[in-house]
Amino acid sequence: MKVLITGIDGYSGWPLALHLMARGHEVSGLDNFVTRKRVKEVGSWSGTPIPPWPKRQAAAEKKFGRPLHFHKGDTGNFAFVRGVLEAERPDAIVHLAEQRSAPYSMIDVHHAVRTQVENITGTLHLLYAMKEVVPDAHLVKMGTMGEYGTPNVDIPEGFFEIDFHGRKDRLPFPRQAGSWYHWSKVFDSGDVMFASKIFQLRSTDVMQGVIYGTRTPEITEDALLTRFDFDETWGTALNRFVVEAVLGLPITPYGKGDQIRGFLALEDSMQSLRLAVENPPKSPEYRVFNQFDAAYSVNQLAEIVRAEADRRGLHPVVEHPPNPRMESEQHYYHPIHEHLPALGYQRTRLLEDVIREIFDDLTRFRRRLAARKHVVMPAVKWADADNRAHIARREPPAPPAGPAPTSAAGTSSEPSTV
Amino acid sequence: MKVLITGIDGYSGWPLALHLMARGHEVSGLDNFVTRKRVKEVGSWSGTPIPPWPKRQAAAEKKFGRPLHFHKGDTGNFAFVRGVLEAERPDAIVHLAEQRSAPYSMIDVHHAVRTQVENITGTLHLLYAMKEVVPDAHLVKMGTMGEYGTPNVDIPEGFFEIDFHGRKDRLPFPRQAGSWYHWSKVFDSGDVMFASKIFQLRSTDVMQGVIYGTRTPEITEDALLTRFDFDETWGTALNRFVVEAVLGLPITPYGKGDQIRGFLALEDSMQSLRLAVENPPKSPEYRVFNQFDAAYSVNQLAEIVRAEADRRGLHPVVEHPPNPRMESEQHYYHPIHEHLPALGYQRTRLLEDVIREIFDDLTRFRRRLAARKHVVMPAVKWADADNRAHIARREPPAPPAGPAPTSAAGTSSEPSTV
Repeated sequence: MKVLITGIDGYSGWPLALHLMARGHEVSGLDNFVTRKRVKEVGSWSGTPIPPWPKRQAAAEKKFGRPLHFHKGDTGNFAFVRGVLEAERPDAIVHLAEQRSAPYSMIDVHHAVRTQVENITGTLHLLYAMKEVVPDAHLVKMGTMGEYGTPNVDIPEGFFEIDFHGRKDRLPFPRQAGSWYHWSKVFDSGDVMFASKIFQLRSTDVMQGVIYGTRTPEITEDALLTRFDFDETWGTALNRFVVEAVLGLPITPYGKGDQIRGFLALEDSMQSLRLAVENPPKSPEYRVFNQFDAAYSVNQLAEIVRAEADRRGLHPVVEHPPNPRMESEQHYYHPIHEHLPALGYQRTRLLEDVIREIFDDLTRFRRRLAARKHVVMPAVKWADADNRAHIARREPPAPPAGPAPTSAAGTSSEPSTV
Repeated sequence: MKVLITGIDGYSGWPLALHLMARGHEVSGLDNFVTRKRVKEVGSWSGTPIPPWPKRQAAAEKKFGRPLHFHKGDTGNFAFVRGVLEAERPDAIVHLAEQRSAPYSMIDVHHAVRTQVENITGTLHLLYAMKEVVPDAHLVKMGTMGEYGTPNVDIPEGFFEIDFHGRKDRLPFPRQAGSWYHWSKVFDSGDVMFASKIFQLRSTDVMQGVIYGTRTPEITEDALLTRFDFDETWGTALNRFVVEAVLGLPITPYGKGDQIRGFLALEDSMQSLRLAVENPPKSPEYRVFNQFDAAYSVNQLAEIVRAEADRRGLHPVVEHPPNPRMESEQHYYHPIHEHLPALGYQRTRLLEDVIREIFDDLTRFRRRLAARKHVVMPAVKWADADNRAHIARREPPAPPAGPAPTSAAGTSSEPSTV
């Protein structure tokens, strides 16, 4: 199949390109490289060294002996989006090109507006361009399990049958997001659902859990590595914990740490997205997949990371800083996920094994982490309307714990990367 | 109380200012006059002649002998919004400054994006400015009953208790909007709900039905008239029917005409908004009011208009053009509305009486309607991604049925108005 990936330079976009190319699909992609820029904006970089795009593209084309078409540009430009669809005429579009950080969206009013405006504009542009250019293509749009929040009932896959005041209907499950970013994904879901109806499109809305891991089987050399964000803005709790352990810092679940979320290994996220792509709805339909493998509390993650760190002689302590977010720290959590298993999804990676692999990679790139350890702990508080002063008050970068890097970009063995 | 009205130059904003001033409130307002401009953009104007803002403002200040503060500007400018709140320090903010036309949002991709971007940006700016400047103020935000769509169950006021897989929760009622505009209001509801939680704000989200009428008791002279839109983009079905009858055209419910909606007289909408303003939540809370008086099908409205037209010797026929929208034309409809009656809401106007009043006013301004009758019938189709060609193909304006106006702006007895 011809698959277009928007946001192909991102954490999921890049390994998805490799995963699909390895399975014979013709892959193309677009990106505006804004994640690289915005990670710099908050003073951080990827824990794994990521080569500039042309080197990535060349490495993938060499590995698979086939072209990987690329279009540099912004989904905020409708003519660009339309032009890419005209050039590629994809059978499926995997839409990952969005501002994806909750803390970034909570910095101040301008980051809130930027997040929601960029995400809904890009998605609307893509929906209209599909209708005009490739109305039979299948849109696989990345959402998040965070759209649902933490209701006190089971979370169905997008829709549920209700009985209310003695009458029945099948309705979209209510969304209760926890950041401006998460709301932007709720809004995208509404727009994709409505466009699928009026324009008669086929779409799969993926409510994805938190992804973890640095590797997929296709990442066979460092030039093919995907990014690994660990700062408070762009990283995940699990990423933070491993980085803290590697750097000899306390592991820091926010608040009580009983917050439960759905998780999925990077490799199994690729499997899931491929299953969605390879099994489109047969006719115009908006369908929702809950895409995660297992649920863990933040404390459980911290314990698994601590156990692996202990095995490596690191012996971190676990501390609980105040939670900068406004979220339930003790709650029921039972999302249903049956659609992907029905298409053949099977777990290939265990959390403990992947955590061991992350430790292996991060130990190798330890000096990159040490050089940015001041951006690991939270400066952005949900209840504050303007967090720019908190961010500015961060400690300056501490000297790295190991030998000093030869340049700001890392040691001489690491090329200039972001 | 000090009440700030955003969109004070609009159909509801203007009579709300008069209604609140008449009851002793200190009223201020902001507007960017974009509705006047955009009604022109689609080739129409207000059926009632509306004076330029300075004349309106002067007429209101003269009538009540008190100042009406006004700030010209755009809610898309955060510094402007913040500055207005600093200048006025309102106890309550009634937020009406939004792109309010469903057909406008459906014209093409750019109108879709503009509608959603403008509406969520303005609301986010207002929420952040409230948090920073007047965190104890009460936000009364205009939504629409259209956010809910037409589910096959009763529609509660914002939230409902559900029992799902044997567990219970109180959740936001699912939204199923029917245009990009209606979705933008759903998005605003999400943002207001979330901001009320993280910033501890007090807010009332008004799910309003369709408003009808040209008059409130405070409109005692033509300089105080509010606007009356009747074109396909900015008007309502009821407005269209009365205009069609006055012009001797067939009355045109779209499709089968069994679509049911909630309706409310302009005067009772003002009563409802005042009750919300005068009865804020006692502590930080996001609450939802379903604000309408009675539900009618489009065919019922057409029949009531036809009956009144018959009384006036006009004898219009009723025709059913194809429905340009994608909506259920036969459906269950039972929204609950108990919150406003609990605050003392009582119906003051009957639909039949208000329709008689609209006929009286429009008969007086018949030549304004005749000069724009080519924009009454729909050119924008929901299923089409680009409607600009349909709009351009409209017939040119027919000469008015009465004596020719002395200028494009109307007869010499009507000042230059929009």
